[in-house]
Amino acid sequence: MKKILIANRGEIALRVIRACKELGIETVAVYSKADKNSLHVQYADEAYCIGPNESTLSYLNMQAIISTAMVSGADAIHPGYGFLSENPFFAKLCETHKIKFIGPSAKIIECMGNKAKAKELMIKNNIPVIPGSHGAVENVNKAIKIAREIGYPVIIKASAGGGGRGMRITHSDEDLKKALELAQKEAQNAFGNSEVYIEKYIEEPKHIEFQILADEHGNIIHLGERDCSIQRRHQKILEEAPSPFLEKHPELRKEIGEKAIIAAKAAGYQGAGTIEFLLDSSGNYYFIEMNTRVQVEHGITELVTGIDIIKEQIKIASNEKLLLNQEDVKISGHALECRINAEDPDNDFRPSPGRINTLILPGGPKVRIDTHIYQGFEILPYYDSLIAKLMSYGKDRNEAISVMERALDEFKIEGIKTTIPFHKKILQNAFFKKGEIYTNFIQRRME
Amino acid sequence: MKKILIANRGEIALRVIRACKELGIETVAVYSKADKNSLHVQYADEAYCIGPNESTLSYLNMQAIISTAMVSGADAIHPGYGFLSENPFFAKLCETHKIKFIGPSAKIIECMGNKAKAKELMIKNNIPVIPGSHGAVENVNKAIKIAREIGYPVIIKASAGGGGRGMRITHSDEDLKKALELAQKEAQNAFGNSEVYIEKYIEEPKHIEFQILADEHGNIIHLGERDCSIQRRHQKILEEAPSPFLEKHPELRKEIGEKAIIAAKAAGYQGAGTIEFLLDSSGNYYFIEMNTRVQVEHGITELVTGIDIIKEQIKIASNEKLLLNQEDVKISGHALECRINAEDPDNDFRPSPGRINTLILPGGPKVRIDTHIYQGFEILPYYDSLIAKLMSYGKDRNEAISVMERALDEFKIEGIKTTIPFHKKILQNAFFKKGEIYTNFIQRRME
Repeated sequence: MKKILIANRGEIALRVIRACKELGIETVAVYSKADKNSLHVQYADEAYCIGPNESTLSYLNMQAIISTAMVSGADAIHPGYGFLSENPFFAKLCETHKIKFIGPSAKIIECMGNKAKAKELMIKNNIPVIPGSHGAVENVNKAIKIAREIGYPVIIKASAGGGGRGMRITHSDEDLKKALELAQKEAQNAFGNSEVYIEKYIEEPKHIEFQILADEHGNIIHLGERDCSIQRRHQKILEEAPSPFLEKHPELRKEIGEKAIIAAKAAGYQGAGTIEFLLDSSGNYYFIEMNTRVQVEHGITELVTGIDIIKEQIKIASNEKLLLNQEDVKISGHALECRINAEDPDNDFRPSPGRINTLILPGGPKVRIDTHIYQGFEILPYYDSLIAKLMSYGKDRNEAISVMERALDEFKIEGIKTTIPFHKKILQNAFFKKGEIYTNFIQRRME
Repeated sequence: MKKILIANRGEIALRVIRACKELGIETVAVYSKADKNSLHVQYADEAYCIGPNESTLSYLNMQAIISTAMVSGADAIHPGYGFLSENPFFAKLCETHKIKFIGPSAKIIECMGNKAKAKELMIKNNIPVIPGSHGAVENVNKAIKIAREIGYPVIIKASAGGGGRGMRITHSDEDLKKALELAQKEAQNAFGNSEVYIEKYIEEPKHIEFQILADEHGNIIHLGERDCSIQRRHQKILEEAPSPFLEKHPELRKEIGEKAIIAAKAAGYQGAGTIEFLLDSSGNYYFIEMNTRVQVEHGITELVTGIDIIKEQIKIASNEKLLLNQEDVKISGHALECRINAEDPDNDFRPSPGRINTLILPGGPKVRIDTHIYQGFEILPYYDSLIAKLMSYGKDRNEAISVMERALDEFKIEGIKTTIPFHKKILQNAFFKKGEIYTNFIQRRME
């Protein structure tokens, strides 16, 4: 592989360029008009404007990207995360044009992208999934029957829904009767579709995900887990590796890790991917989904394993064999990541675009920062609000927290609002310090 | 220890503040008038102006610093490197005022600061030193006698000299006769003192130094070695850990490491210190000096050991016991440091003060940057020209080099000249890539 086009922007475009440079591979950047002053444009060997500001006309513009790859003579396309990274049609388009898509095949992306299909595959392979109706419940009697089978509390969710709307938690048959009707009405109003399904309600679950690497020769390993439980409205905002809970339960960690490998094998997976689980306080775990791309939070796994996940992606796509066995993967120390977003925490986390007038980034030992911003850069309203990933490392979780606290203190940015003050509050929280985290931590402990 | 005053400026002042913050210790900055906008002033809990721009009136102003420590209620003073860090009188002054000096006792500083005394101590402890006259040679006959004993080539050096002036290398008795007279004349002219001494000339030596940690309870360990051979006019500019040569000679590494421990024990050492050796291509090694303070290049040892040397200094000064045995120290991977100086490599490396108009610092995986500069900061002519320490890490030397190369490429700075282009040249040098380095590498391979 001699030249790679990066079909993305922001920090992840820089991240891929960095890996390519270190491997001696040339890079091609693509950019929207609005991004003409971006660092990924400056740091790549070549850069091409592929469309106007709107993502749909630029970073999602498949034809423009494929043409640019062909014109520039790129051997491969790295899609980063978001945008076209999990679009099976785009992966297929690359295949058709004999450009290597750095990720799994279109078929695998499609299969794992379909939640129902993915769940079915897991059940077939004895990987626990959240018990429930696995499809719409037709009436109250069936709902009660299922709820009794899986045990209360159960949660009612809109089939066409998302983002928490139309959800209802119920604790008894009586509850369920009333809630079902209301949920169906709400679903009809919100999504134009009254269908609802039932799932066991997992109380205070942890979001645990295992990082997978799979080559094209049948070798699959995992790089341990990340805990991404600290979420705000289902959006991850602070991640860590390893999981504080699994540190205390090494047998359980081993078991879930093995299940993650089975899951990836069942999918016939190739490349870097993530198997996500919910884990309850009793140690029950349930597959929720597989991400068939690199994750925003991959860096913390790099910090605790020393393995460069982007370089591994590129080597796998070049048909190289993994040089590591599972036993070679050693987790050492602890890493945290704060997602610094251009959002106003005092104003319901609304996007806060604008020009960065002053910028002093944190530095020094045990700090890693992945960012595309610089003093004078303008944050635009067209794209997502992530402006920097601030990571810290320590010999243990306490040290990683103290490094992160001082790094957040050093971070000076003027001209826009950011989530930095919110991250400081999380880190100061006594329950967070103890590692008592779960997906509704922000609601329960902060709001 | 609750509050520490940092008697320094620039990146090392920041480095100490970072360690203190992570340990929950309050910090007091001191600054010259010129440094009022410096980051160490902004990041410390308290800051006091101690004098005008000139170092002699500010950062070397012992009374002002001691008074500030007393007024602010600091328990201890961290001297950083340079300035008062190896001044026994200042250490004594701290002792007198019951302020803990973070470093060894005045007596140890004084003993190791006297080259002749330090050498004597090493000879007594069977640690090789460079053979020679150990003092002035009175006449040609004595010079020839010594030269024959230690073997040619020998180097004649001015007793009062330094910086390479008055040095002459000779290969035979005839040579020596002529050179001695010339050297004496040159010494008289340059330093007003004609005394010269003779030492064995070590051809293409490597500068190898072992990092020592010694607590106040008699425990002494080393954290492996650094190779600081890449020097320009006797100034280190690029350091690495571990040494590429000693990687191939593990028995020799073990032996020199043991000698370093013996040397530190013989000195009754306490705190962090460095034992420096010259190493020739046959594996002969010679003690040259001990530094009784933290070194500029300590960060690369931190990268390969995971040990925070500044935190260890503070713990030792708090009378804590070292928690590590020698066997606990594991060297993993490889680290490089480039000293980025505000100097013009195209103009004989003259200082290049001025305002930084544009600044984009490198980031991403395996990069550490310790710097006090920011966009808009003005580099002043009063202090040394080091503006940033750029460090890279890799699983091996090749990876560390590739990370450093891409990091140097990312480093954008406008308004002043820096040594960045010179570092790029060193890294591209084929001999450097092979690890064939020695203290005259720049002259022989670059100039």
